[in-house]
Amino acid sequence: MGSDLGPAELLRGVVSAASRFDATLYAVGRQDELEKIAKENSIDLSGIGLLDAPDVITMDDKPMSVIREKNHSSMANGLRALAHGEADAFVSAGNTGALITGGTMIVRRIRGVSRAAIGTLFPFDAPVLLLDSGANLDVTPDHLEQFAFIGSLYMRQMFGIESPRVGLLNNGTEETKGNQLQIDTYQKLKRMDGINFVGNVEAKTIPFGVCDIVVTDGFTGNLFLKTVEGMAKYMSQNLKEIFHTNFLTKLSGLLIKDRFAEFKEAFSATKHGGSPILGLRAPVIKAHGSSNARAIESAVGQAIRFAEGNFNEEIESFFAESPTGESDEN
Amino acid sequence: MGSDLGPAELLRGVVSAASRFDATLYAVGRQDELEKIAKENSIDLSGIGLLDAPDVITMDDKPMSVIREKNHSSMANGLRALAHGEADAFVSAGNTGALITGGTMIVRRIRGVSRAAIGTLFPFDAPVLLLDSGANLDVTPDHLEQFAFIGSLYMRQMFGIESPRVGLLNNGTEETKGNQLQIDTYQKLKRMDGINFVGNVEAKTIPFGVCDIVVTDGFTGNLFLKTVEGMAKYMSQNLKEIFHTNFLTKLSGLLIKDRFAEFKEAFSATKHGGSPILGLRAPVIKAHGSSNARAIESAVGQAIRFAEGNFNEEIESFFAESPTGESDEN
Repeated sequence: MGSDLGPAELLRGVVSAASRFDATLYAVGRQDELEKIAKENSIDLSGIGLLDAPDVITMDDKPMSVIREKNHSSMANGLRALAHGEADAFVSAGNTGALITGGTMIVRRIRGVSRAAIGTLFPFDAPVLLLDSGANLDVTPDHLEQFAFIGSLYMRQMFGIESPRVGLLNNGTEETKGNQLQIDTYQKLKRMDGINFVGNVEAKTIPFGVCDIVVTDGFTGNLFLKTVEGMAKYMSQNLKEIFHTNFLTKLSGLLIKDRFAEFKEAFSATKHGGSPILGLRAPVIKAHGSSNARAIESAVGQAIRFAEGNFNEEIESFFAESPTGESDEN
Repeated sequence: MGSDLGPAELLRGVVSAASRFDATLYAVGRQDELEKIAKENSIDLSGIGLLDAPDVITMDDKPMSVIREKNHSSMANGLRALAHGEADAFVSAGNTGALITGGTMIVRRIRGVSRAAIGTLFPFDAPVLLLDSGANLDVTPDHLEQFAFIGSLYMRQMFGIESPRVGLLNNGTEETKGNQLQIDTYQKLKRMDGINFVGNVEAKTIPFGVCDIVVTDGFTGNLFLKTVEGMAKYMSQNLKEIFHTNFLTKLSGLLIKDRFAEFKEAFSATKHGGSPILGLRAPVIKAHGSSNARAIESAVGQAIRFAEGNFNEEIESFFAESPTGESDEN
């Protein structure tokens, strides 16, 4: 209910995902409204389950609203269905803070996991997972160690990478670079079993395949994410202007129009299906607030693949044996 | 002596700057070698002064080498000439850490300034100054307040912007966003006289002219800088591939070749002349290690404009009246 483009666009995505994937799909929201919108937009909801949820969390609501004044929102009800095993995965294009809070409080973290984190998948030549992308501004080396392990499982599950390479985002590649957080985390990751640590990585090399997973605190991760987004937009706009210089450049623009559009789309918010919330007991995917039907379809596919993994056991047994497995509430 | 492309390229830049600007230029380095290289490369050094300096600081040398084992390097000797008033500005394409250390220890900071910072000028539609770009990983709100003031003076001097807009790099625009550093700095900048604070800025909006100066700690600034650099390179490479798809796209590529090259160059390291080291008693410009003759010429022009300003008095009198004006040694 709380996405930027409204329920009709999301319903279209759900219907299209239902025809493509072997899964039972439910749309959660104000049931009357959803039925009315489907009818008005000639969206055929046969085969799609509807779960009623009277409350609506907006982008301006506080994260805690999901378990307080709006605990019958589509987000809260969907997460409860997930927590109770009535669903195997949950996708939301709503308020990110509320989704992380709701995920943590309703679905809960896997035993041993201290913080849920948001992963972002970048569509570089090979996909790169950034973890954390903004859920945890202040983290310790123990948190980053957990992100490294959970991210590795995710990349193995989703892309079949046997031994995904983990890099620590830093301002240089030498072991002693960075602030105390990076210096201490480097030493931990270097000694850690169960991950393939390739050392510090600099932001300028990340698009060129130096690692499969980038671990960092949420403040820095968010900054990287938003700089990539801003630069992709800025450069695309500038290129457009280049093509508009004169008749020949306009002709040139026409010749590569389709390829250029594909390329632009790869970095726009609507292409990559969604960002996994990692560390929870069941798969939660945050789709971008402005997701169109195609992005929702892709996020649903991602959620299904995610649900086919066996994260919880692997993570529980790994952190049960490690002293970092103490769960804290934040 | 310590730049990536070697002394010949730098000498070419100096000669070309001498013909363009009304200034007396000196090349600092191993005098015999410089004369030999000039002869071999048919570079006419008449009109260029030569200052001898036997030591050479390499990119691998520790920052402190500039005042210790290599205190007769081109960098140390040049900075001493500047400190003694024998020169009005100094440009170096050498080791950044050594230049900041040398600048701080030999030229020294302006009274009241706690930290020297590196500014980076981004060639977006309007120039944007990022401060700090990597000299100070750990900073306090007091340091950021100083960066805001000094950066404002620089943008006024160099680009004639009457009231340059200062933004605080953050993960959202709301007043309460960020870590403690950002939250506390926001409150300080909001109350500060002598600058035009426009609030928090997100990385994705910086290319689109939301402010003239971005203040942040050196770790985050360096990350922003390197992400911009990496994305510019990545997108340029991908576009090249698009143009190589087939005959028509190749033709298309030919049609916009020159404009595209210009655009690419704007973001490559060699175009923007250099990065000012701000807060020192005299102008020091760090040119990129791989600067070509044209970049050196541009850095010299920048140094000359910088030297025409009246920074020291303005900064001294401003911080003399402020409690943040206590100088610390780091």
